[in-house]
Amino acid sequence: MDCINQRGIAYGIGVGPGDPELMTLKAVRLIRENDIIVVPGKDPKDSVAYKIAEAVIPEISGKTLVSVSMPMVNDKEALTHSHREAAKQIESYLDDGKNVVYLTLGDVSIYCTFSYLQKILEEDGYAVELVSGIPSFCAAAARLNTPLVEGKEELHIVPGFYRRNETVSYDGTTVLMKSASHMSDVKEYLREKNTTVFAVENCGMENEKVYQTLDEIPDDAGYFSLIIAKNKY
Amino acid sequence: MDCINQRGIAYGIGVGPGDPELMTLKAVRLIRENDIIVVPGKDPKDSVAYKIAEAVIPEISGKTLVSVSMPMVNDKEALTHSHREAAKQIESYLDDGKNVVYLTLGDVSIYCTFSYLQKILEEDGYAVELVSGIPSFCAAAARLNTPLVEGKEELHIVPGFYRRNETVSYDGTTVLMKSASHMSDVKEYLREKNTTVFAVENCGMENEKVYQTLDEIPDDAGYFSLIIAKNKY
Repeated sequence: MDCINQRGIAYGIGVGPGDPELMTLKAVRLIRENDIIVVPGKDPKDSVAYKIAEAVIPEISGKTLVSVSMPMVNDKEALTHSHREAAKQIESYLDDGKNVVYLTLGDVSIYCTFSYLQKILEEDGYAVELVSGIPSFCAAAARLNTPLVEGKEELHIVPGFYRRNETVSYDGTTVLMKSASHMSDVKEYLREKNTTVFAVENCGMENEKVYQTLDEIPDDAGYFSLIIAKNKY
Repeated sequence: MDCINQRGIAYGIGVGPGDPELMTLKAVRLIRENDIIVVPGKDPKDSVAYKIAEAVIPEISGKTLVSVSMPMVNDKEALTHSHREAAKQIESYLDDGKNVVYLTLGDVSIYCTFSYLQKILEEDGYAVELVSGIPSFCAAAARLNTPLVEGKEELHIVPGFYRRNETVSYDGTTVLMKSASHMSDVKEYLREKNTTVFAVENCGMENEKVYQTLDEIPDDAGYFSLIIAKNKY
């Protein structure tokens, strides 16, 4: 009779958007309890998600830190290749019966690189569990001391501003994420709409900046910039 | 010279959608550090938000628990009146130099009753701070082990299904919250769309139920039901 190893579980864990105190109790417990910590990027210790976790769990630096390459490129073949490689790294630990904790910024279900790995891991028969983190737009609203939506208003999360003429104008509140590379276009677009605009750059991080009007937002705002546009009624 | 009291701060704190382990470190700290706990409803100890906090911070039961009436009615005058009364209760503690912690389910910036009180408190010159909680739709996605959105997909949060013909059909993923009272209409509407549907009832609570298809969702699903509808491409 073959001896069947109990495979480990792959946890995708959101550590929230920046402030280490916005980590959940569950995220902290699972990072403490497990020894294999996977972080996207070249050096795990350079990643923002790792630094957030380390601020609460300093002993993380003594765990097995595994970096996986998750390049942001448009070449589908290259992407698929790096996702397969990253999944293979994770699976080697799972096969040894070890759990793996993948750290990700914000929430794990919203524009998260782990989603690509999850698909491969599940296809390969491994168990995956997701642990929610505070999404950046919630933290930005709290930082701005403003509700995102009330009553019957709708909330629309738009992952980027790609093509000006194709960007739909929604009722309620629209959050524009990762629009920094087109900031002057975004500002021109929003200026024409009847909206109240706020923005937060690097929410909860040391270099956080808060903008209370559209005009305050610099054209060269950084990658972690998030715009909240509320329709005026 | 008059003696000027230092006024307290009103904290609006999201305790997440149900699982006490999804509370943030910041929420736990602020509940521990402060003595006046405000909860909407008749008996504070009956409220779901209170029970979530109590599971992590049992000593909360020895604090000053204040119930405020936040009725869900359509009568605007009655609503304004109860919000003013609730704000008055909170302000009496703030005037005494005490901080007040208002507990709310999910996140504090998304369809939160505290938003009404915040407006009054700020108009009256009091300091308000918001502390994010995990929104129900993030926890539901994690429970279902499915990403909400990936890549260029948009995420739309719709607070209720009111009038069938006016409900807009969006690209990407749509989350329907608080649609239980119209569930059979909602199901009929979604059946006509080309969507993959999941739902979670009472996410993270003892009586949690998970539905992996539209047909599994019962017509009499409870108030804390949340539907995730993903467009098929």
